[in-house]
Amino acid sequence: MAQPKYLTGDIAAINEFLDRFDVFLLDCDGVIWSGDHVFEGVVETLELLRSRGKKTVFVTNNSTKSREEYLKKFTGLGIPTNTEEIFGSAYSSAIYISRILKQEAPRNKVFVLGEAGIENELRSENIPFVGGTDPSFRRDITPEDWTGIADGSLLDPDVGCVLAGLDLHINYLKLSHALQYLRRGAVFLATNVDSTFPMNHNFFPGAGSISFPLAYMTGQQPLALGKPSQAMMDAIEGKFQLDRARTCMVGDRLNTDIKFGIEGKLGGTLAVLTGVNKQADWEAADAVAVPAFYVDKLSDIGAVAHDSMQRS
Amino acid sequence: MAQPKYLTGDIAAINEFLDRFDVFLLDCDGVIWSGDHVFEGVVETLELLRSRGKKTVFVTNNSTKSREEYLKKFTGLGIPTNTEEIFGSAYSSAIYISRILKQEAPRNKVFVLGEAGIENELRSENIPFVGGTDPSFRRDITPEDWTGIADGSLLDPDVGCVLAGLDLHINYLKLSHALQYLRRGAVFLATNVDSTFPMNHNFFPGAGSISFPLAYMTGQQPLALGKPSQAMMDAIEGKFQLDRARTCMVGDRLNTDIKFGIEGKLGGTLAVLTGVNKQADWEAADAVAVPAFYVDKLSDIGAVAHDSMQRS
Repeated sequence: MAQPKYLTGDIAAINEFLDRFDVFLLDCDGVIWSGDHVFEGVVETLELLRSRGKKTVFVTNNSTKSREEYLKKFTGLGIPTNTEEIFGSAYSSAIYISRILKQEAPRNKVFVLGEAGIENELRSENIPFVGGTDPSFRRDITPEDWTGIADGSLLDPDVGCVLAGLDLHINYLKLSHALQYLRRGAVFLATNVDSTFPMNHNFFPGAGSISFPLAYMTGQQPLALGKPSQAMMDAIEGKFQLDRARTCMVGDRLNTDIKFGIEGKLGGTLAVLTGVNKQADWEAADAVAVPAFYVDKLSDIGAVAHDSMQRS
Repeated sequence: MAQPKYLTGDIAAINEFLDRFDVFLLDCDGVIWSGDHVFEGVVETLELLRSRGKKTVFVTNNSTKSREEYLKKFTGLGIPTNTEEIFGSAYSSAIYISRILKQEAPRNKVFVLGEAGIENELRSENIPFVGGTDPSFRRDITPEDWTGIADGSLLDPDVGCVLAGLDLHINYLKLSHALQYLRRGAVFLATNVDSTFPMNHNFFPGAGSISFPLAYMTGQQPLALGKPSQAMMDAIEGKFQLDRARTCMVGDRLNTDIKFGIEGKLGGTLAVLTGVNKQADWEAADAVAVPAFYVDKLSDIGAVAHDSMQRS
């Protein structure tokens, strides 16, 4: 397989790279920031892209925040954007449920394993749901639960879908409910199936660690609505009317970001080394995806800014 | 593959079956009971086996209880036994850690994902541990945790092993700790990897639902110390000095019980239909294991009792 072109420090190559694209789809965790730490030079790089007329869209698998909540995070970290530029897997999931799955009432409730971000996006699409951040699910399982979950008397008969995202309050009670809904035929969706979640320069359990045990228990794989699912790419294309040939996906993960861009037949993919994957990962014989370009860090493609300004 | 012989109602076949074995290894959940419901006729069947001079050993993957706690359950349900007849995966794990793994102090602590049953068996082998039922781990993850887990300051440097069993108090904080210990090189063990846990005639998340997400996050499979792991069979053989050729494994699950007996080269395996697997499962082309015998329920092999007594 062709090896990717390394751009860091090569101003001519970076300018050529930038000229090939009108739209940059940017992953957030591991590219823009790690947790609440914004990588150096990112703000200036985004400014450079926009000053050259590029459209920037933040495409994230993190489902814990809605677009509104993401906007607050971007603003708080000093990164100018608006909700229209933000595309998260919670939003992608809500769109899929309301516009494609279209379950009919009354059996159209979603049992949510996840945080407020998912609930807010479901609400914005008028999708009824249970579970999620409901405090009545944030407790230990009781003898009454064992009985009522097993015989169904404590289950909501209107649940037709289980949606699993990153749930920082995951517990045995919620997993038990989700398992029963799936056993009773609920559709199994996941906002995304990232195994880990980058934070503070390290890794924590990702959304996949919530859906994976359910897949193991039921023998049923969830339909994932985050990267690399092309359901998400189709939704992005529909919303932004982009030309795939002149669009570049930027990310740190081969199995989500880079695969997403390649399977979406985008004009290019750019890997950054500030997150999960390293050069050895795409050089491996069994590499899940190989990017077209790579840089050490996102701001390396902004290294032409000074130069351009000096020339102008 | 040869199909199993059906014994229910066939008194001659049952007598012949009983005569072939001196030892019966009996799974509990789905065989003896479902949750707190003892199947009809089980007590009488155990009496029959013992009256014919058979040794009975209860071999269970359920790690939530220690042997002492199991004894209380058996006694409470009116089933006469003693701790020497009980062999659980928590006990099997403790034996493995103390006698085979033998990590050297100070890095010999076990991080436990599980209940008191595991802790009690670790204590009985003088194995130091953290986590488990410690109330300080039964809470939400905090900003201080994100930082301290990521930089290691909140981790115990003496942890050399992660042991995952069924944890009814599983949460994101515990999973995050376990992930970090594994990333730092801790040995990954599981009491067992059953995907589900039978209870009240239904299924709840099993111990595998605790270790599975960690395997997914780390790309590392745990060494499982419950059925069908032959580490457990070796320990049982060592303890009871049994003749494998005259030993029969009785269980409801093909992928744990029956596989355990076949791979252990026992003289026979008996499937009961009161638990997870049904006839169609071993008749499937991709059946994971095929038993030598089967009955509808355990008490069917006790159906000779009346007959025998009438004859005597």
